[in-house]
Amino acid sequence: MVTTVKLAVIPGDGIGPEVVAEALKALDAATADRGIEFDRTEFQLGAARYLETGDVLTDDDLAAIKSHDAILLGAVGGVPGDPRLVGANIERGLLLKLRFDLDHYVNLRPSVLYEGVRSPLAEPGEVDFVVVREGTEGPYVGNGGAIRTGTPAEVANEVSVNTAYGVERVVRYAFGLAASRPRQKLTLVHKTNVLVFAGSLWKRTVDRVAEEFPEVTVDYLHVDAATIFLVTDPGRFDVIVTDNLFGDILTDLAGAISGGIGLAASGNINPDGTFPSMFEPVHGSAPDIAGKGIADPTAAIGSVALLLRHLGEAEAAERVERAIAADVAERGDRPRSTSEIGDQIAARIQALQPAHS
Amino acid sequence: MVTTVKLAVIPGDGIGPEVVAEALKALDAATADRGIEFDRTEFQLGAARYLETGDVLTDDDLAAIKSHDAILLGAVGGVPGDPRLVGANIERGLLLKLRFDLDHYVNLRPSVLYEGVRSPLAEPGEVDFVVVREGTEGPYVGNGGAIRTGTPAEVANEVSVNTAYGVERVVRYAFGLAASRPRQKLTLVHKTNVLVFAGSLWKRTVDRVAEEFPEVTVDYLHVDAATIFLVTDPGRFDVIVTDNLFGDILTDLAGAISGGIGLAASGNINPDGTFPSMFEPVHGSAPDIAGKGIADPTAAIGSVALLLRHLGEAEAAERVERAIAADVAERGDRPRSTSEIGDQIAARIQALQPAHS
Ligand SMILES: CC(C)[C@H](C(=O)O)[C@@H](O)C(=O)O
Ligand SMILES: CC(C)[C@H](C(=O)O)[C@@H](O)C(=O)O
Repeated sequence: MVTTVKLAVIPGDGIGPEVVAEALKALDAATADRGIEFDRTEFQLGAARYLETGDVLTDDDLAAIKSHDAILLGAVGGVPGDPRLVGANIERGLLLKLRFDLDHYVNLRPSVLYEGVRSPLAEPGEVDFVVVREGTEGPYVGNGGAIRTGTPAEVANEVSVNTAYGVERVVRYAFGLAASRPRQKLTLVHKTNVLVFAGSLWKRTVDRVAEEFPEVTVDYLHVDAATIFLVTDPGRFDVIVTDNLFGDILTDLAGAISGGIGLAASGNINPDGTFPSMFEPVHGSAPDIAGKGIADPTAAIGSVALLLRHLGEAEAAERVERAIAADVAERGDRPRSTSEIGDQIAARIQALQPAHS
Repeated sequence: MVTTVKLAVIPGDGIGPEVVAEALKALDAATADRGIEFDRTEFQLGAARYLETGDVLTDDDLAAIKSHDAILLGAVGGVPGDPRLVGANIERGLLLKLRFDLDHYVNLRPSVLYEGVRSPLAEPGEVDFVVVREGTEGPYVGNGGAIRTGTPAEVANEVSVNTAYGVERVVRYAFGLAASRPRQKLTLVHKTNVLVFAGSLWKRTVDRVAEEFPEVTVDYLHVDAATIFLVTDPGRFDVIVTDNLFGDILTDLAGAISGGIGLAASGNINPDGTFPSMFEPVHGSAPDIAGKGIADPTAAIGSVALLLRHLGEAEAAERVERAIAADVAERGDRPRSTSEIGDQIAARIQALQPAHS
């Protein structure tokens, strides 16, 4: 019996296509002869497509993407300051539009400090946490506006929208995740002393859902204090649940303290399965190093592991993760090309025999 | 000729009174026989006062504070989770109320890695930047609300309000500061790709004011990327200008990478002089270590240096800073009490002869 998964692939801009190519090698290696097949459709989206056609994401694109089972995305965004891109907001019009329209309410961002990674801040094994970032609300909703733009009397507002519906579902997911991990700990990060209305909703929701998960230890940190602890004591974190903007900030910082943003994978997940989930490295399109074959594809490959786990292929996901860990552990100082890293991780995946074969 | 400065002193809660006592020793040492006298009034404000009287900050308190020339604040806030404090928001009702009502639109937060401070991330001399955090707008305005609170249909909003008036004055201050520093560099930190209205106002304002300061090099970072650079390359920063919430987050992180929050001083400044400016350590009231005499008063003493510079006493400010640097450089592993540190820094201040005496 063979399961066929319809996979939408969005290589994007800059180093996006380079790292996606390696991620697909890993996907092939992990699933060869495993009873799962990927039927891939590539979507040309991003700054390059916009410059060619003027389109960021058409209704047809969106409908076509929706008809897939999952999405693998490289990175989107043009060269910063490119005058031809003024007016196009690729981030809002493409990346955030996908996250919102596909109801990716869980933005899952694990941080692991692998053996062999030199970090000034922690020892391998000490950093192993997951940020569950809300993906469809908060200051990201696009609910802003301005009056008298360009005059000395301009007022520009941004509204953070938070609903019981939206907060509860992501908090519940985070508790479920915490309950499934050995340390069973959940930290809410917010700024309840200043953002009193949103903060109160988050706090009350965590307190209430906590009653259903007595095995999970719960604590709370203000976002400013959380940045301090990420630097001084990252080992204290297991599962962090937080809003869209705080999650954005904390996960870049988390990447920086656990081996660099070149290793940080993410999943934009719709746990209900109503829409396809989307997997992408946390890093951007890095136009400055694009085309040189020097981008690190590890974060994209790590995103494949998250994709496989989401599809229920836990064993294949684990092989990808173990292959990454082994590759990272033996990284010396010799620089390798993007495809060398991708080939070597793919070879390791193939060499790791499935536990139950 | 003797200048008399009316100083409002708010020791506050927890370790606040302990560190303020040492800060006042430093103030005395730096100004003895210098033609400046401090006429001090102490205000009992904070969680303790609230628990006694039910008042957070009365109109009379506020009027009395306004009649002073400057304010020195320790820290306010009770024991987290104290049930008697539920309902009182000391942070909003006292600290933020003072910042807003006294129009402290510049929240000045320098980060210096002193000689002798072991940081895993940088060498002394490499970290020397100032965050100019906007203090009267953004998500801190208290412009939020909720409907159907406590029901599954609850919606809780928070509005970030940004005005041309408010952004321009703080941006202009930041440029002036950057122009006066050796490296003459200014970095705007925001999230223009997501918070497009507020971001656009900040970006346009920086671009416009930059024309008046051709000697200042300007760059821009998204807030998430800024956290990465604070960890991997803090030396790239000179003056950072940013909004109220991003500034809150970045300055705690900045404290963590430059020797700990025990060293981080700040000034809440009204540059126009319409209202008294307020100087305070960035740290909180730390009830867990209060009363033990082990709090580090260095951040409070550093805030005295900022106070003196604000009052035009540059020479005295510099002696306080040099005394702190010398003390920090010789800190061994032997723990010292709060008052030992305070006494030793005060003695150093006295020993440093004024340049022009
Ligand atoms: C590109 C940007 C819109 C995006 C975000 O802010 O979510 C990115 O920083 C991320 O973290 O995936
Ligand atoms: C106590 C709190 C309201 C305050 C803030 O958020 O500004 C503090 O974190 C600070 O940075 O001074």
